[in-house]
Amino acid sequence: MRGHLHELLQESREPWSPEEFEAALRAQGQSYHHLHPFHQRMNAGELSPEEIRRWAANRFYYQRSIPLKDAAILSNCPDIDVRRDWIVRILDHDGEREGEGGIEAWLRLGESVGLTREDLWSARHVLPGVRYAVDAYVTFCRTRPWLEAVAASLTELFGPDAIRVRLEAMERHYLWIDPAGFDYFRSRLKQAPRDARQALTLVLDGCRTRESQERAVAALALKCDLLWAQLDAIGQGNTQPAREHRDVE
Amino acid sequence: MRGHLHELLQESREPWSPEEFEAALRAQGQSYHHLHPFHQRMNAGELSPEEIRRWAANRFYYQRSIPLKDAAILSNCPDIDVRRDWIVRILDHDGEREGEGGIEAWLRLGESVGLTREDLWSARHVLPGVRYAVDAYVTFCRTRPWLEAVAASLTELFGPDAIRVRLEAMERHYLWIDPAGFDYFRSRLKQAPRDARQALTLVLDGCRTRESQERAVAALALKCDLLWAQLDAIGQGNTQPAREHRDVE
Repeated sequence: MRGHLHELLQESREPWSPEEFEAALRAQGQSYHHLHPFHQRMNAGELSPEEIRRWAANRFYYQRSIPLKDAAILSNCPDIDVRRDWIVRILDHDGEREGEGGIEAWLRLGESVGLTREDLWSARHVLPGVRYAVDAYVTFCRTRPWLEAVAASLTELFGPDAIRVRLEAMERHYLWIDPAGFDYFRSRLKQAPRDARQALTLVLDGCRTRESQERAVAALALKCDLLWAQLDAIGQGNTQPAREHRDVE
Repeated sequence: MRGHLHELLQESREPWSPEEFEAALRAQGQSYHHLHPFHQRMNAGELSPEEIRRWAANRFYYQRSIPLKDAAILSNCPDIDVRRDWIVRILDHDGEREGEGGIEAWLRLGESVGLTREDLWSARHVLPGVRYAVDAYVTFCRTRPWLEAVAASLTELFGPDAIRVRLEAMERHYLWIDPAGFDYFRSRLKQAPRDARQALTLVLDGCRTRESQERAVAALALKCDLLWAQLDAIGQGNTQPAREHRDVE
């Protein structure tokens, strides 16, 4: 795909120092989805109950897919020490038994905004744009080298600040929601910083050439795009004519 | 690939009863690798130390790949309850911390027959035929529906009997091996029956059409072939001229 000369130029470039590399990664936070108009409206208390429900149902499709992408990373990773650390994410999310874990916590959030578990598991409210974005992320983690998939997970670097703001806004503006529903965010405030540190160490240690460093930054940018695209679809909602209508035509 | 008429004939066929289906699965034990000449020679005490070392180093390539295939199953499985059970296999194999788990136990077996950990991790003794067979298994589990990959794991049904015979033969015939090295087999005697029961329940419950039942049997047959092919390669050893020789030509 690239010319030989270009390849030579690439290889001759110096790798970034760890500080430069980390700064390039953190700079991706400028396109993290906390800046998306939908999240801004959420934090300003402007979302209707219907919009909150649309967000919760669609975001659940992302939540339920997280263990699949983490298992894909596990499946592609030949390093037993990395696997022993990474598997904790799957246990956190799936829970070790029924009634535990991050997916269960999101189901409770869904219930507290007026959705049923069946609404959430059936994916009947999931918009095509959300589905494509989430599936693209899982496919990326299945098919790309595991360290790039780890780099994509570094949105965890930006998560806790966004969650703190969201949690406060939720509790202040959406009094119709039982605050027990926000437990998911409370546990992520503990888990995300640990996950981000672990992933950052792997990426800083593992990417020693400029090209691999740039691939890591690109993976993180791609992940920010995926999160943003989900909110684009959620913010817009379903603009398709109802299927019954189309069947009649 | 198949004609429409053939498709219709397929669909009209009755599913097997659970008993018939289980019998068809168990019948695959007739081509399980306990019958391979190499294992027969092992059990008769006829293997040289070099052959035992060749077996241990090559079989380690299989052992180290097991968590990768189990993570692939996890990554393809949308059922959270199944994932909560299946993840235990990865924890068993990788161990929850350094010094634990099935891979560690196999490393100790390798040491007790005179190999170093570096011999095992480097894969320098791994024969091409073993590599292809193991990689084919991991690829199968990554690319096929998760329930077929679960069916392939049902060689666990035949494992414990074979391990009991092997363990006794090892302790009787190979007095030069420290019996502590056989701990891997002792723990598999406990884990394998639990794993086999769990997988058998999933396959019997999940495959309700004749075609899906036959695909499960085919997956198990494929797995038996993979194990057999590994022993073919191990029994034969390396017949390639040394690379130095070829470089000179």
